[in-house]
Amino acid sequence: MTPSNTATPSNTAPTSNADTQATLAELAERAAKLDAANALAYTRERFLIPPNLVYLDGNSLGVLPAAVPAAVEDAVHRQWGNGLISSWWDEGWWEAPLRIGELIAPLLGAAPGQVVAGDSTSVQLFNTLTAAARLRPGRRVLLTDPGHFPTDAYLTDSVAELLNLEVQRVPAPEAPAVLAEIGGDVCVVSYPIVDYRTGERWDLPGITRAAHEAGAVVLWDLCHGAGAMPIGLDEAEVDFAVGCTYKYLSGGPGSPAYVYIAARHHDAVRHPLAGWNGHADPFAMQDAYKPAYGIARARIGTPPMLSLLTLQAALSAFDGVDLKELRAASLSLTGFFIECCDAALAELGFEVATPRAAERRGSHVALRHRDAVRLVPELAQRSVVCDKREPDVLRFGFNALYNTHDDALKAVRALRDLVG
Amino acid sequence: MTPSNTATPSNTAPTSNADTQATLAELAERAAKLDAANALAYTRERFLIPPNLVYLDGNSLGVLPAAVPAAVEDAVHRQWGNGLISSWWDEGWWEAPLRIGELIAPLLGAAPGQVVAGDSTSVQLFNTLTAAARLRPGRRVLLTDPGHFPTDAYLTDSVAELLNLEVQRVPAPEAPAVLAEIGGDVCVVSYPIVDYRTGERWDLPGITRAAHEAGAVVLWDLCHGAGAMPIGLDEAEVDFAVGCTYKYLSGGPGSPAYVYIAARHHDAVRHPLAGWNGHADPFAMQDAYKPAYGIARARIGTPPMLSLLTLQAALSAFDGVDLKELRAASLSLTGFFIECCDAALAELGFEVATPRAAERRGSHVALRHRDAVRLVPELAQRSVVCDKREPDVLRFGFNALYNTHDDALKAVRALRDLVG
Repeated sequence: MTPSNTATPSNTAPTSNADTQATLAELAERAAKLDAANALAYTRERFLIPPNLVYLDGNSLGVLPAAVPAAVEDAVHRQWGNGLISSWWDEGWWEAPLRIGELIAPLLGAAPGQVVAGDSTSVQLFNTLTAAARLRPGRRVLLTDPGHFPTDAYLTDSVAELLNLEVQRVPAPEAPAVLAEIGGDVCVVSYPIVDYRTGERWDLPGITRAAHEAGAVVLWDLCHGAGAMPIGLDEAEVDFAVGCTYKYLSGGPGSPAYVYIAARHHDAVRHPLAGWNGHADPFAMQDAYKPAYGIARARIGTPPMLSLLTLQAALSAFDGVDLKELRAASLSLTGFFIECCDAALAELGFEVATPRAAERRGSHVALRHRDAVRLVPELAQRSVVCDKREPDVLRFGFNALYNTHDDALKAVRALRDLVG
Repeated sequence: MTPSNTATPSNTAPTSNADTQATLAELAERAAKLDAANALAYTRERFLIPPNLVYLDGNSLGVLPAAVPAAVEDAVHRQWGNGLISSWWDEGWWEAPLRIGELIAPLLGAAPGQVVAGDSTSVQLFNTLTAAARLRPGRRVLLTDPGHFPTDAYLTDSVAELLNLEVQRVPAPEAPAVLAEIGGDVCVVSYPIVDYRTGERWDLPGITRAAHEAGAVVLWDLCHGAGAMPIGLDEAEVDFAVGCTYKYLSGGPGSPAYVYIAARHHDAVRHPLAGWNGHADPFAMQDAYKPAYGIARARIGTPPMLSLLTLQAALSAFDGVDLKELRAASLSLTGFFIECCDAALAELGFEVATPRAAERRGSHVALRHRDAVRLVPELAQRSVVCDKREPDVLRFGFNALYNTHDDALKAVRALRDLVG
């Protein structure tokens, strides 16, 4: 890649002044030093990043892991093409959702036997929220986030209709106080670990504790957090969690989701999507549903094996990665990006919408700008990929497994060129 | 392949007698003539069948279509690897469930705009059965098959619990009479087009008509029929149908399912799995669910794109295929197989469990034998792949796009060698 300190001649940024250029030069030096000192630099080679692309949309779709193509070819030619039906057993297809669940579990801070992969986040949300609410019969309130991702909102309303419950929407910071007040009516408390627009990280242990003190159970949506930071589900005594795998886990477009159910709930949960893959003895073809032992009961139907095996290969990008180190690298990237924005973009009408306090950040940074919708494709033309949330948000996702401080600075320089 | 008339020297079948051997020799001649005259013989080249394998389990997992490997490589390297997030629009990922639904529609006898692909059959069953039942409020009975595939049975019970309905299980041949009697209480009538064990084909138009006369709606499970025969959903005025794509559609292990909803119901259906992909304006990120226009409202969450694109490529094996011709070829194969069984296996304790009347057959033939469980792996060692349903059923699935009469005879010879 081009060294960042030669990327943008000063005469291409019309509004630039000598001070800003000096600051950008300093930041370029800092970026080079930070990238050189990055303990996780070795993982970038685990991904096939298109040359000269600054890809800051791993919070929507992670880049292609280098281990994937060979795994897919093997799955198609040898396992399906030659093994055919026997691969359900001989290649471990039948156990794949559980095996892949075990690969995801450490990324969530979950002991073995509590995570299974499959279906979409939407399906997992519906199935898990219904099962969770059934654990607290008589309690009529689902407490959730007014800013939750839309599919969470829609499926919460749908579950409420089916179970005759009431949905109350309370911003995450206020949830503990509300639980202290009306918690006796609440069956499930359902929040995202990171707000999908602003990148603000919510207090998973605190909200979980408040829910438990009120006698409720929690369901966390980990889509915008897992793979970018330690989650600590077991440590926080979380009850349920779901998440996708195509963002920071780089499992590929629409790769299967996962569900976590704390072991203490396994015997009691009853899922509405009582599909035959979750049966205690699926090939006995019994007339009545009898759920499997443990997390296997959260399986539903026959899973999309090629997408699952792709995900399995993709997860090898995390081999040997310490999640605390990953989180530190992620915070360094997002912190540096915010610093660059402050130095070079604030004067051009950009506002950082993500908290500056490290502990309150996820792994993407949201900038507000009145021209956000127009800027995203213009950035893409300059080989900087981010995404938008209408009306005025640009999101820059940082995956510390492959992004660099140089990426962060290049994105800021490109924005400055476009707006300045 | 080895010519079938030299496949089994008479001294390897201890119980054979001169008459049976003469009959087998005649059958071998017939097989050769039938295969030579097969108008669909050209489609066999559209599949990558392992050399010398007699694969009669396409009713569980179809063989690898020749168009798949290049399509998968393109999806992984160019679309995901290089196109990244832009492929959701530039490569038509977002529209893929609808586009693939349109490829499936003609196989079901469905006019455009009524089929969408995605999720598993189990998820589609739950979502569709709930939506169907909601169309008939006040009617409390779900009428279904006591011999239905287990996941249909389990999910019917689950929907009944959620909606406070009652499940009545009546064999398909008795369903019209029962509907004439108690039909006023029935909301949904739910049957498979072909029994998964015996291969018996049920009367889709007749049961549909009886259901409508009673004021109920129908939901057909097409898993064991679609891709092997014309289905005629529109012609029979079917309301709802679901099915998988990994059997006769050869979409790959666990490839996404599909759902058909007759256009006349589109405005009224309300799905419990109200995921954001089915929203009228998904990227507006609205707080409340507003279903999309038409069949798009049956979309749920983000679909497994690699498995979907694999399915899309696989469906090209049907290009130009006339379904009536396909059905005739299928019946020729299953009829010939039954004839071979009668001639060479009846004396060895095998009983044909599939109806002999052509119009009552699907595309697999079930044989009962006390040693079924042992015979399936022993057949596989002789390169004949079928499957079992405990305790005593062997199933031989015929996909007329790639199976031959020679396959049928080889399977019978191999069974005779093992048991005779």
